[in-house]
Amino acid sequence: MATLPKILQTVVIEHVAPELDGGRYPVKRIMGEAFDVTADIFKEGHDTIAGILRYKTEGNNAWQESPMQHVDNDRWAGSFVLAENTRYVYTVGAYVKSFETWRKELTKKHGVVEDLSSELLEGEAQVKEAITQSKGPDKSELKLWLDKWKAAPNQDTRITIALDDILATLVGQHEKRAAWSTYMQELTVIVDRERARFSAWYEIFPRSEGTVEGQGGTFKDCEARLPVIREMGFDVLYLTPIHPIGETNRKGRNNSLKSQPGDPGSPWAIGSRHGGHDAVEPALGTMKDFDHFQKSVRNHGMELALDFAINATPDHPYVNQHPEWFKQRPDGSIKYAENPPKKYEDIYALDFYSEAWADIWQEMKRVLLFWVERGVKIFRVDNPHTKPVPFWEWLIRSIQEAHPDVLFLSEAFTRPKMMRILAKAGFTQSYTYFTWRNSKKEMIEYLTELTQTDMKEFFRPNFFTSTPDILPEILQQAGRPAFKFRLVLAATLSPSYGIYNSYELCENRAIPGTEEYQDSEKYEIRHWDWDRPGHIRNYITIVNQIRRNNPCLHLFTNLRFYQADSEHVLFYGKMTPDQSNILLVVVNMDPYTTHEVRLSIPIEEFGIGEHDTYQLHELIQDYRHQVVGTEYWIRLDPQKEPAAIFALRKRVRRENDFDYFQ
Amino acid sequence: MATLPKILQTVVIEHVAPELDGGRYPVKRIMGEAFDVTADIFKEGHDTIAGILRYKTEGNNAWQESPMQHVDNDRWAGSFVLAENTRYVYTVGAYVKSFETWRKELTKKHGVVEDLSSELLEGEAQVKEAITQSKGPDKSELKLWLDKWKAAPNQDTRITIALDDILATLVGQHEKRAAWSTYMQELTVIVDRERARFSAWYEIFPRSEGTVEGQGGTFKDCEARLPVIREMGFDVLYLTPIHPIGETNRKGRNNSLKSQPGDPGSPWAIGSRHGGHDAVEPALGTMKDFDHFQKSVRNHGMELALDFAINATPDHPYVNQHPEWFKQRPDGSIKYAENPPKKYEDIYALDFYSEAWADIWQEMKRVLLFWVERGVKIFRVDNPHTKPVPFWEWLIRSIQEAHPDVLFLSEAFTRPKMMRILAKAGFTQSYTYFTWRNSKKEMIEYLTELTQTDMKEFFRPNFFTSTPDILPEILQQAGRPAFKFRLVLAATLSPSYGIYNSYELCENRAIPGTEEYQDSEKYEIRHWDWDRPGHIRNYITIVNQIRRNNPCLHLFTNLRFYQADSEHVLFYGKMTPDQSNILLVVVNMDPYTTHEVRLSIPIEEFGIGEHDTYQLHELIQDYRHQVVGTEYWIRLDPQKEPAAIFALRKRVRRENDFDYFQ
Repeated sequence: MATLPKILQTVVIEHVAPELDGGRYPVKRIMGEAFDVTADIFKEGHDTIAGILRYKTEGNNAWQESPMQHVDNDRWAGSFVLAENTRYVYTVGAYVKSFETWRKELTKKHGVVEDLSSELLEGEAQVKEAITQSKGPDKSELKLWLDKWKAAPNQDTRITIALDDILATLVGQHEKRAAWSTYMQELTVIVDRERARFSAWYEIFPRSEGTVEGQGGTFKDCEARLPVIREMGFDVLYLTPIHPIGETNRKGRNNSLKSQPGDPGSPWAIGSRHGGHDAVEPALGTMKDFDHFQKSVRNHGMELALDFAINATPDHPYVNQHPEWFKQRPDGSIKYAENPPKKYEDIYALDFYSEAWADIWQEMKRVLLFWVERGVKIFRVDNPHTKPVPFWEWLIRSIQEAHPDVLFLSEAFTRPKMMRILAKAGFTQSYTYFTWRNSKKEMIEYLTELTQTDMKEFFRPNFFTSTPDILPEILQQAGRPAFKFRLVLAATLSPSYGIYNSYELCENRAIPGTEEYQDSEKYEIRHWDWDRPGHIRNYITIVNQIRRNNPCLHLFTNLRFYQADSEHVLFYGKMTPDQSNILLVVVNMDPYTTHEVRLSIPIEEFGIGEHDTYQLHELIQDYRHQVVGTEYWIRLDPQKEPAAIFALRKRVRRENDFDYFQ
Repeated sequence: MATLPKILQTVVIEHVAPELDGGRYPVKRIMGEAFDVTADIFKEGHDTIAGILRYKTEGNNAWQESPMQHVDNDRWAGSFVLAENTRYVYTVGAYVKSFETWRKELTKKHGVVEDLSSELLEGEAQVKEAITQSKGPDKSELKLWLDKWKAAPNQDTRITIALDDILATLVGQHEKRAAWSTYMQELTVIVDRERARFSAWYEIFPRSEGTVEGQGGTFKDCEARLPVIREMGFDVLYLTPIHPIGETNRKGRNNSLKSQPGDPGSPWAIGSRHGGHDAVEPALGTMKDFDHFQKSVRNHGMELALDFAINATPDHPYVNQHPEWFKQRPDGSIKYAENPPKKYEDIYALDFYSEAWADIWQEMKRVLLFWVERGVKIFRVDNPHTKPVPFWEWLIRSIQEAHPDVLFLSEAFTRPKMMRILAKAGFTQSYTYFTWRNSKKEMIEYLTELTQTDMKEFFRPNFFTSTPDILPEILQQAGRPAFKFRLVLAATLSPSYGIYNSYELCENRAIPGTEEYQDSEKYEIRHWDWDRPGHIRNYITIVNQIRRNNPCLHLFTNLRFYQADSEHVLFYGKMTPDQSNILLVVVNMDPYTTHEVRLSIPIEEFGIGEHDTYQLHELIQDYRHQVVGTEYWIRLDPQKEPAAIFALRKRVRRENDFDYFQ
């Protein structure tokens, strides 16, 4: 029905950006960043308008304001600093600057129209209006201006006073906002702490950290390994599930259906007589041991990430306490988790469609808060794409309302739109298809989608080079050279990446025809020889050092691909917005063949002239070249060094004209 | 605040298309068309889901439904017919097809899992559920199936029954819609009558239709001209304002500030002692004459369009009746319309920011309804970009609620975003930048924007070749060849186009350095010699005939540009979706030089093989060629014929194998 509006909002405000799905989902940013907002703002006629960016932290009633500037073609831009780790609400307002509009008209008429007395009376009325709206020193000053205006001996003097910029500023600060209009909705931005974007993960099975052959590792054993892990340069230590493991239908080695005595079972089969999701597996230690370990991780400059897997074994306390949370079959039995025709007989799936769904939601929140209160602020969530999306949206928001510093990594290896919606629903970081992108073309396409489409607003990738479930074919087949260049790709393309332990050993034994590890840690206790020949621990250490030292690698959407004359050699760069840090990365994605290739260095983009000298400093092997022009040749032998990371340093000319590299 | 949802809607439905600005504005379509809607629909897990397109006419409570089909990558598509000239509301729903999901699981397990008795019990429960939901013959039939199922002698027979497609269809029709979910909002489509998209306009000043030198024309004179205008092939006859013209500060010939006795004044200076917007200028006749004329236009197979210009002269009845509708200056005088430093002293602008704005809105609605009730269903709105956008949104909706067949053409020659928002706010058709697009490159860019971006959802161009305000430079300078090819461009690029009378005479005398006509009809009575040498009336007649006979020209977004090896020659085509009507248009946009050019006929697009013969039938000059392959050469001499319009006819092979062109 066409109804008369209650208030006349005549300034059109549309296409506010960023905005995701008509405002349905929040965008994401990092604390401390400036948040840039643009909008189309315009109005009928010729009035001068003001655009205002409004913002507040969620739950706060008072808007703060930041003026917007006209860019071109009715597009306006504004910005504010995201100072707090919380959600902000933002929107755009606009109004007619009446006095400014009047000044513009007067200026145009001045010298063309003879008698401007009527116009001057209009302006005078506006100054009077501003006086009634103001108080204190401004009011006094405005009154003085009005007196001067009235006392002016002739029209020309009066016009000079009327058009004075100081008067205009004063009136502008106190005039009523004519035709005040607001954008049709309020939008949200989630502001996370830095770790949400920039993180290097290291994944372990705590039980494999033992030092005595045949005996499982404990939290204490894990503690002993912390210096080595930290030394490699990781900041997040991610533990596969640490909860009591079920005994009924326990899986045996290499995923066999029957376990042998002593087999520890899959850590994802959660729940035994020792407890469920809020307990620890006794073989790892006590809750006290866990607390000690957690603090020790922090003391080593890292953070702990726990695995959050909503699985329950037939032995889980939930089964007795809440049989209504599980799907019962007509014969009274509880339904196993399944992906027909496969059955997972060691696991019952919680039934998110049971009548008691809300109780399950609340219990999951309780479990997370239990660990958050013990100091765990990062969760890697197992298989989120098998639970309802609205559940995650509610759960993550519930936790972050009280604990905005808690981060969630979505382990959704699934269809593209499901991966995206989980990120929109609130997951801080997401697993990706990186693991399976092996050609230069695929990598450029995928990274362009991640960094240049609206995915950049909400989807923060975490590039894992492998996981306990996925030993990619290229690593199985090509070995060490592939382990090296896949590491460089993960660590430099994405600000967040991770390795699953044994990657540093170039462990590549798979069950033939699958991506499963041979003798997988998922089903047995392993003992790794961390000094095994061929390891790439030093290489990882160098790459992580480069990541830390170069702020351009802490960002993601600054990724740009450049020209390399080979279909195997990927060439890309990142720089900080102020260009004080520029890295260029070259990777030979063919692990079998040496490629010698011409790179086109985009010197124009960096403000380097075609005759200027600049320096390329290769950071992995630490050599330097002085270069002039766009052409640069490089030879990448995968057996020696499949990748190069150059810091590009411009020559800065100082007053005294010494040559010098910044 | 994170709050538990009241209902668990777990199917994700997003990116519904078409959707404009997050649903803020309606899209537009034509009555009788199929309306195609797509959406991303998916859910956690492996359930089989159904997508449902829901729709209803606005104000109606009952949803109608149309099933959607999965296309690929979780994208679904559906469609329904827009049967009525009204607004429709549409949205998307989805649910889990429980029985189908169960069948899929059973199929996967069958032959792999030995004992399926528990699974079969689950299915049986679903059939029972469907029985309770159904009635009549379906209920009886379902009961028979259940009996058969239960009586089955063994598991294999029971599975065969359970997987029967007829049973599946029956259960599917009556099962509960599990996890029923709906898109977050309802969207709107305005469904107009055909004339909204396909129309050929002819614009006249009624007072110039007189046949006695020195004497103004009347509605009766206009009536006498109807056969000629119809003969040329136009369907909309658009009259510049017909209301009483003010006398105070009346403009004289060629826009001079002082009029001479006998000068008729500008028709846009509305209002005199004879009345305002709901009266007719006495010099044109009486209201009765108008009514007679209006009916006569219909009897000639055309429709009348009136000009709606919200201007009031100092003599308008509003000035006395509603002084509060005008902006009063501090000295008590009413403010003239102005565009500083220019003043329009024959016009007062209504003040849409007065306290009484709502009264002005209502009065404008009353005025429009006054004419609608007299049979006028098309309005060309003067300068809408100088009135508030929300006013138009309300006004057009108010009128169309009672009279959905009323069409509005926006005369907004202004900034791009204002032109767009007016179309989004409800204008049926819009003036465009066509008039100033003179190069091939510009034309391709502009038409691509109009037909391939989201503008196609709401912006229906009306390509006027000239208007009383705009005699484009190219027509002034290049004369007849330009008049011919600009006509072909307007008439074939856009399904709606118009000419302002005297175009057929190639009238090109301008006030030097401006786009204003010399001796403009805006300020004086003209008498045209319609048979003046050099006229292109026959040419216009042919082009309009081609438009009528070729349904592909009734559409807009079917426009495609093709390769012509010249920067001056534009080559494009349109076809109906079933390819039964294909036109190719070639225009030499250089009015001074003959160009001979190679065209690349996109035969592949039309399903023509490289060795197939097809026919090109040129419709302006009526010649035919048999062609094989993609290459076709044409020579366009602007002095002879600057454009060619080809009907492409494929050779159809029949059983008896006679060669024949469809």
